[in-house]
Amino acid sequence: MNNTIEEQTWSRKNLYKVLEVTRGKKSRASIIFNTVLLTTISLNTFAIILHSVKSLRHDFDTFFSDFEYFSVVFFTIEYFARLWVCVENEKYKHPVWGRLRYIFSWGALIDLLAIMPFYLSNFTSDTGLIRILRLFRIFRLFKFSRYVHALKVIENVFKEKREELILSVVFFLFMLLISSSTMYYIENAAQPKVFSSIPATLWWGVTTITSVGYGDTYPVTTLGKILGGFVAVAGVAMFALPTGIFVSGFNEHLKSTKPQEKKYKYCPHCGEALE
Amino acid sequence: MNNTIEEQTWSRKNLYKVLEVTRGKKSRASIIFNTVLLTTISLNTFAIILHSVKSLRHDFDTFFSDFEYFSVVFFTIEYFARLWVCVENEKYKHPVWGRLRYIFSWGALIDLLAIMPFYLSNFTSDTGLIRILRLFRIFRLFKFSRYVHALKVIENVFKEKREELILSVVFFLFMLLISSSTMYYIENAAQPKVFSSIPATLWWGVTTITSVGYGDTYPVTTLGKILGGFVAVAGVAMFALPTGIFVSGFNEHLKSTKPQEKKYKYCPHCGEALE
Amino acid sequence: MNNTIEEQTWSRKNLYKVLEVTRGKKSRASIIFNTVLLTTISLNTFAIILHSVKSLRHDFDTFFSDFEYFSVVFFTIEYFARLWVCVENEKYKHPVWGRLRYIFSWGALIDLLAIMPFYLSNFTSDTGLIRILRLFRIFRLFKFSRYVHALKVIENVFKEKREELILSVVFFLFMLLISSSTMYYIENAAQPKVFSSIPATLWWGVTTITSVGYGDTYPVTTLGKILGGFVAVAGVAMFALPTGIFVSGFNEHLKSTKPQEKKYKYCPHCGEALE
Amino acid sequence: MNNTIEEQTWSRKNLYKVLEVTRGKKSRASIIFNTVLLTTISLNTFAIILHSVKSLRHDFDTFFSDFEYFSVVFFTIEYFARLWVCVENEKYKHPVWGRLRYIFSWGALIDLLAIMPFYLSNFTSDTGLIRILRLFRIFRLFKFSRYVHALKVIENVFKEKREELILSVVFFLFMLLISSSTMYYIENAAQPKVFSSIPATLWWGVTTITSVGYGDTYPVTTLGKILGGFVAVAGVAMFALPTGIFVSGFNEHLKSTKPQEKKYKYCPHCGEALE
Repeated sequence: MNNTIEEQTWSRKNLYKVLEVTRGKKSRASIIFNTVLLTTISLNTFAIILHSVKSLRHDFDTFFSDFEYFSVVFFTIEYFARLWVCVENEKYKHPVWGRLRYIFSWGALIDLLAIMPFYLSNFTSDTGLIRILRLFRIFRLFKFSRYVHALKVIENVFKEKREELILSVVFFLFMLLISSSTMYYIENAAQPKVFSSIPATLWWGVTTITSVGYGDTYPVTTLGKILGGFVAVAGVAMFALPTGIFVSGFNEHLKSTKPQEKKYKYCPHCGEALE
Repeated sequence: MNNTIEEQTWSRKNLYKVLEVTRGKKSRASIIFNTVLLTTISLNTFAIILHSVKSLRHDFDTFFSDFEYFSVVFFTIEYFARLWVCVENEKYKHPVWGRLRYIFSWGALIDLLAIMPFYLSNFTSDTGLIRILRLFRIFRLFKFSRYVHALKVIENVFKEKREELILSVVFFLFMLLISSSTMYYIENAAQPKVFSSIPATLWWGVTTITSVGYGDTYPVTTLGKILGGFVAVAGVAMFALPTGIFVSGFNEHLKSTKPQEKKYKYCPHCGEALE
Repeated sequence: MNNTIEEQTWSRKNLYKVLEVTRGKKSRASIIFNTVLLTTISLNTFAIILHSVKSLRHDFDTFFSDFEYFSVVFFTIEYFARLWVCVENEKYKHPVWGRLRYIFSWGALIDLLAIMPFYLSNFTSDTGLIRILRLFRIFRLFKFSRYVHALKVIENVFKEKREELILSVVFFLFMLLISSSTMYYIENAAQPKVFSSIPATLWWGVTTITSVGYGDTYPVTTLGKILGGFVAVAGVAMFALPTGIFVSGFNEHLKSTKPQEKKYKYCPHCGEALE
Repeated sequence: MNNTIEEQTWSRKNLYKVLEVTRGKKSRASIIFNTVLLTTISLNTFAIILHSVKSLRHDFDTFFSDFEYFSVVFFTIEYFARLWVCVENEKYKHPVWGRLRYIFSWGALIDLLAIMPFYLSNFTSDTGLIRILRLFRIFRLFKFSRYVHALKVIENVFKEKREELILSVVFFLFMLLISSSTMYYIENAAQPKVFSSIPATLWWGVTTITSVGYGDTYPVTTLGKILGGFVAVAGVAMFALPTGIFVSGFNEHLKSTKPQEKKYKYCPHCGEALE
């Protein structure tokens, strides 16, 4: 009996090592599994994109639905396998609470979001809802994030510079609201259809501040053009803000992760080692 | 008699602590008041935006005007309460001159601008003027600034880098005037309606230098396209200027506000000072 | 005789001090002259801009031509006065060669360019030529440069980072030529009028790389859109180059002009002063 | 016999010094050859651009084809001359394997690509293929790269910051796919022709994230505009990433290549080391 439990633990540990991306030497099984998983996610991305093309959708209908079935089955097995082995991780070691905590972890939620829409769409015949559920398939892309270690850097910069980034967003919203409201009052009389309300003018505000400038909405009155010019200039200047924040954030981060030469390795006076 | 004055002073001090955003522990009254104020400002912002939508304006007319009355009454009481208690602040402690100085402070002017248009609009029946006064309501958004401590950072960067920023503006105006004037002389013959005068061409200049490019005005002659290309490139390059200024401004500011810890001030072994 | 020369020298020196922008205490005469000059340049700028507006040109015709006469007379007197007194400057002290060198200095050429077109336009009746000469009046704006000391900073950054900036320009031209040529071969069949030749496609290239995107030329074929997408992304990424160059250029410049604390003022071992 | 080999070696060495851009004093022959080569490349670039203009192509047909023959002959001689002398370079000193390795070096491949299309076009009469081969002539521009030493800096920054740049690209693709897929599901019903499929919507995604905004595709539904606004803002913010990477990359590179002078390595008074 005891033997069986040990054996089970042993095989669970092995499976954990196969499934999870860990540092150090990888086993052949782990390399094969992760290659298959990455390929399946990539192919899914392509399938989602190509399926939206009408002609392809009609010609390869069976192929697309077969691939969808295969993907969901594969991702479902993966999901439950990960749920079974997650207790090998110190963070989730309790068989019940650990697994529950794992279910609500970022990675597990993404894995669930990748398969859930398929099962839910079987419970409804509302084509609108099915359409929306189909949209959620794109979140399978997020399954890639397990392999992008570098996302950690972005996350850290966001955390460290949180206050400054919030400030940028607040600034942007201020500028957007003030400029769009004023532009609405200026342009509304001349272009009552395009600048029909402040919410409609916000679209002008965003495309101008970000300097996208599609050309579907732009001021035509002299006063509106003067304001528009100021907003465009202020917009470019304002985006210097987050750029600066990111730059200094990255620099600081790189400095703190890179080993820095110490000023003094030994005290220059007594020769004793420092630290 | 003396007692009453003291009591009055005491209650004024209390009210001051409730109204003003101070550091340290906040009283329950202060938290409630500031929450109500922030909510009212936020709702005002939404009301202004939604009121501009024709259908909403008609359907919820009474609601909008009621909310406007409530807001003005609330902001008016707030304004006079702040004027009464401002003398508790060391900067405005003289009962007459201090209060006068307070009235012309940034915060008080914003508070006044938030209520004044409402009262002024009662003295006129000119719908054009009422329209403009209505526009001023958007400045109620600035009442938020009391709560955004981080605005101080922006202000400091602006102050420290004032000279460089002025230089950027001067550069921008130079480029704008030179390029627009030249473009006017080049394109006027080919597009007499679009490039009708230098002031009209300035609109092309701004949308090109900021790379917004709505597409309502662009050169069609070969010479105009060559100049336009140079201006577009120079525009992007030129906005590297304020970006650089902001970046170094932020870095310097962060360095000088963050406490920089030296590792060792004294050698821990022999006690000699390490510089 | 000698006295007269001395007197002349003395008055020339005085006039030099009035005309030239020097550091230190300014005399009342200098302040008045420079204020008048700055005002005249500013008014000239406005006059040039407003003169291009047809209605204003017709209504205030006499005013504009009177102001033009006044400006040219004023700038001509200024030019010759500066030419007379320039020998007070150590750089141009030789009465003949110094003055000749002064004539070909940057500042003097700008001053000449501000008045020359007026005189030249009297020798021709060709309206086309007069139009072009009229355009040159905009260079009067450059007379401002005498007062913008900060232009020196830009000039220095350009000099110090010359190699990197040339590299950026070379890179930009490479990208522009390669992408436009390829786009021409791809899109020419689908849009023979818009992408009629490589020179015509260069206009698409510039508006895309600088992300202006007027919307007058854009690819419509799938291959063209793929290339267009890459060019747009590469364009934004590429402009990170000069930004980085400027940023580090400014930082370096600021560091070298700001007094830097020395690490050791005195040798910590023997106490002797270091430099 | 031995003498002849020596002589051959001697003349090969001389030719090597003429052909290759080396540091130090250049011989007159080297300066002449390189000037001629640079001029030929420049003229080729102009010829390719001007040949695409229909009117010029017809009027100067013989001239263009003569210049093409001359260029190809010149570049072919250059190619084989370089192949002959390349063994003088330590890296390719083996007469057979060294030359083979040279053939697959970056520089030699560019040289081959500059002449190959011409020879290949003689083996086919397919105008479509000839058109494509003609396109490859633009790669003659890359022959310039031999002279742009500074490209090394870019290459090094790319190498050093490879991981971060890959991260940026991954981030960009993520954002592009997620936003375009979602936009497709939102806008498809309202604009079935413009947002016909996800691949078609990717074009919208690229022009928005890079803020080019041609104006040929933009959302018209409220939900689409909200998403579009977020994507535009995120796009600008995201390009702060590679900018920051480049900036810090350049700074680091400049620091490590510039010799940093210490002021004093040793105290000039007592001889003690100052670090």
